[in-house]
Amino acid sequence: MITRRGFFSGSAAMLAAAGCQTLTGNDAPVPAQPRAEGAWTLGKVGFRLGVAGYTYHKYKIDETLKFMEKLDLHWLCIKDFHLPMSATDAEIKEFHKKCADHGVTGYAVGPIYMKGEEEAKRAFDYAARVGVKTIVAVPYEMRKVNGKEVRYESRKELEFVDKLVKEYNVKYAIHNHGPDIPYLFPIAESVWAQIKDLDSRIGFCLDIGHQFRDNRDPVAAIKKYGARIYDMHLKNVSDNSKKGGAMPFPRGKMDLFAIAKAVKEIGYTGCMSIEYERDFTDNFGGMAESVGYFRGIMDALRD
Amino acid sequence: MITRRGFFSGSAAMLAAAGCQTLTGNDAPVPAQPRAEGAWTLGKVGFRLGVAGYTYHKYKIDETLKFMEKLDLHWLCIKDFHLPMSATDAEIKEFHKKCADHGVTGYAVGPIYMKGEEEAKRAFDYAARVGVKTIVAVPYEMRKVNGKEVRYESRKELEFVDKLVKEYNVKYAIHNHGPDIPYLFPIAESVWAQIKDLDSRIGFCLDIGHQFRDNRDPVAAIKKYGARIYDMHLKNVSDNSKKGGAMPFPRGKMDLFAIAKAVKEIGYTGCMSIEYERDFTDNFGGMAESVGYFRGIMDALRD
Repeated sequence: MITRRGFFSGSAAMLAAAGCQTLTGNDAPVPAQPRAEGAWTLGKVGFRLGVAGYTYHKYKIDETLKFMEKLDLHWLCIKDFHLPMSATDAEIKEFHKKCADHGVTGYAVGPIYMKGEEEAKRAFDYAARVGVKTIVAVPYEMRKVNGKEVRYESRKELEFVDKLVKEYNVKYAIHNHGPDIPYLFPIAESVWAQIKDLDSRIGFCLDIGHQFRDNRDPVAAIKKYGARIYDMHLKNVSDNSKKGGAMPFPRGKMDLFAIAKAVKEIGYTGCMSIEYERDFTDNFGGMAESVGYFRGIMDALRD
Repeated sequence: MITRRGFFSGSAAMLAAAGCQTLTGNDAPVPAQPRAEGAWTLGKVGFRLGVAGYTYHKYKIDETLKFMEKLDLHWLCIKDFHLPMSATDAEIKEFHKKCADHGVTGYAVGPIYMKGEEEAKRAFDYAARVGVKTIVAVPYEMRKVNGKEVRYESRKELEFVDKLVKEYNVKYAIHNHGPDIPYLFPIAESVWAQIKDLDSRIGFCLDIGHQFRDNRDPVAAIKKYGARIYDMHLKNVSDNSKKGGAMPFPRGKMDLFAIAKAVKEIGYTGCMSIEYERDFTDNFGGMAESVGYFRGIMDALRD
């Protein structure tokens, strides 16, 4: 268990504080700096509103960036259908240029599912070539459950990762996926059980929606694991059970204001990235409403 | 000047408290009760989010109601292009039925421009037939200014109105229109100069956007005139001058959180109705973002 005292004095907080920043080392391409948040912002709140690439997986990157610009969104977690892991350095450069033209920075990559040392190494190489400091990831091994081969959360895989985060100095944020995939990090607690003794660069991409769909309180997870949260998936869902589906904010059963207050309280400075899993081929209205709602909450919390 | 002490103890506050309600007298048709705000609301805030009919003046009422239902909006200030003043009682009944089918209540009528006793009487008759307790209005007379006949704010007209508000027991909310029409109630101060000695049922439909476009602070107007505010037009605009145009929230120069806090502080229980004067034939995205934003602020202010 991480105490808040430990969090605010610890080096993990320093790492967390860099949540939305990108590598500026000589070896890595430097994504364009985003334009500042609009002149209409009321003040400062530590965290930023971003987008999880999956939201736009039915759209190509050009369309995605147009939607983001229209909604004044500047931070994108890059998913492979927008920028394949096989992309050349020239393609990566072109991708960043497109983003910059719309005021968007790709701040992380993933979620990337990975099994075995080679796949882990490939993900870290990809992140380094893209020039981001955070990988959203799901490490797994194959196991037989009830006679069926399934992806299973893996401590063994994390041993490769524990070396790689040191070698690359990149954060590794494990994504929890709720009751749909019960063997593969359903909740923050299952992530913590595997990572607590590992390098502090290994942490969470806390998906508050899946946490809630597994009937857990996302506020409690935010407060408990705050120092190791390096990315977040922001959503609202219709029920605190497996049947809970995505809803435009504020609809759904989650109290997003309480969540935002907790995120502010832990001093999180990374992205809260909307993953809007609904109306994938026509989500502009639902995204607009959700972005507006969360921005209203953020403005209410600004200092 | 109205003091807050005076406001909270005065009978005007009682009237203001009925802001969103509709007549239930035996003589008036009773609009359907709206369904409750969604189950996702976090608590109570005194005022409600509505829509000024002008927002949808390029859409027929059926389309308007579909947009409102999609955005979970329940309160509409009825404009004449959606329900003409010449509508028969049967047409009014049909209108209310349509609204009810989409969970919407028409809570007021207007803005209605009126000149002379006959037009004033016609507006009050219309309100009574529609079954609402509030008329948003602009009373005027014709005057020659620089050789040109213009609509001019009128104290004489208000003398008819002063009798009619008593006779019909209906509130009469004068709409301010900013620097575009300088002779016709540009700002709250021009309204107050004409109404301060009249029946307290004569008050404001405070348009915060036009107040701001005339380089006045809407927060100050809300605090000063709170007890006589019976309706509000909610918007954001790009500048505190005549060139200021409508923007999706939170874009624009106005601090809507400060405004919402002031509205809560004065104990306003009427509607804050979005008048979104932009992209009139394609405003779903901008409205969604704006509705979301203001709902985020409201949730942050809930008790």
